[in-house]
Amino acid sequence: MNEHIVKSYEDELNTLTAECARMGGLTEAQVGDSIDAVVRRDTTLAESVVGRDQRLDILEADIERKAIRLIALRQPMANDLRKTVAAMKIAMNLERCGDLAKNIAKRTLVLTEAEPMSPLTRSIERMGKLVLGRLKDVLDAYTASDLDRALAVWSRDDEVDEHYNSLFRELLTYMMGDPRTITACAHMLFVAKNLERIGDHATNIAEIIHYEITGVETIGSARPKTDDLLREA
Amino acid sequence: MNEHIVKSYEDELNTLTAECARMGGLTEAQVGDSIDAVVRRDTTLAESVVGRDQRLDILEADIERKAIRLIALRQPMANDLRKTVAAMKIAMNLERCGDLAKNIAKRTLVLTEAEPMSPLTRSIERMGKLVLGRLKDVLDAYTASDLDRALAVWSRDDEVDEHYNSLFRELLTYMMGDPRTITACAHMLFVAKNLERIGDHATNIAEIIHYEITGVETIGSARPKTDDLLREA
Repeated sequence: MNEHIVKSYEDELNTLTAECARMGGLTEAQVGDSIDAVVRRDTTLAESVVGRDQRLDILEADIERKAIRLIALRQPMANDLRKTVAAMKIAMNLERCGDLAKNIAKRTLVLTEAEPMSPLTRSIERMGKLVLGRLKDVLDAYTASDLDRALAVWSRDDEVDEHYNSLFRELLTYMMGDPRTITACAHMLFVAKNLERIGDHATNIAEIIHYEITGVETIGSARPKTDDLLREA
Repeated sequence: MNEHIVKSYEDELNTLTAECARMGGLTEAQVGDSIDAVVRRDTTLAESVVGRDQRLDILEADIERKAIRLIALRQPMANDLRKTVAAMKIAMNLERCGDLAKNIAKRTLVLTEAEPMSPLTRSIERMGKLVLGRLKDVLDAYTASDLDRALAVWSRDDEVDEHYNSLFRELLTYMMGDPRTITACAHMLFVAKNLERIGDHATNIAEIIHYEITGVETIGSARPKTDDLLREA
């Protein structure tokens, strides 16, 4: 086999993984900044999150193109094929996390026009920290190819749902107690839902890492969950 | 070239497209039934939507596997590669529409426990018809490889956003007028958001068809929109 071809093929695969890891870092920053923006009512930060989102769209399209090119021209098998497909699928999940962060940032711009709602903001902050932590952990697992770490993220899927359900109830109580807060609270409901969905993407990424490393598509029997009813699709 | 191989390759590609079209039909039915369930407060129908969703998950995983296999083993180029990637991406969008329909069905089960809210239900029904029509049109465009029809769906992206924005305002007004409706209206907010997102997936599918047929990834300069602020990520 031609050594030049082999080397360049491995280079391509490594570039793909590195680009995906880099996209992970940028996504983590976008999610973190969107949470900070909504908690600190920082419109400048919110606007910069909105402005930076396109970068993630471009990266995702680029990773997808490279992955398909690699599959078509290099015909990777087994491990390498899984690595390639994993990079493509993780990039999709990251791009959607970026969209959700952008949406949180946009809602921040509306929320800063309303009165501050401190107890709710603290609940959002707690849920935000939890979700950001999951995203960080699963990206650490990806760069380190650490199956145990990915599984740890996957098995704690419940925590985000519990936070979301309690925040949902808290928001409804707030609205009932003071109908003037209804508009702001409706936006907060979507902020909470967006955070929950970012948490779901972290779980998806954990499943993709599991598949990449083991070649098995499902983990255990099913994903753990407490209250299935209010889970967003 | 071996004729047997060529034939079987075309067969594989046609099977992939047909399977994707079939998944489209099932998704359309799921979305339609979820809207009927919420409008008619039909819990039996809602439960059957929830129960049938897994079928779409399985189909999507199958289409993805087949598409990647085809790319890796058959190395399709140009048109055929685009056709393969398009089937894979459309299946992803359909799977997410199915999840959203399932979520609408689950919320129906909660909503039927509250008092009926007729004016709101009619607004949901109107928006549902619009969104279902878009999904149907774009799937027609896919099976007929009809670029004009796909572009027609794409260019009317605005209509769903307008409906969503007006429904969002209507729901807030309802909540403020009668705080006892807040819980039910919060679930309706998510039903409306889910419909908007199904509309977005129809737009995505139109873009994928455009790419499949023309090989060009973007349509015009950007997607049309009226109120960017409240668009879900």
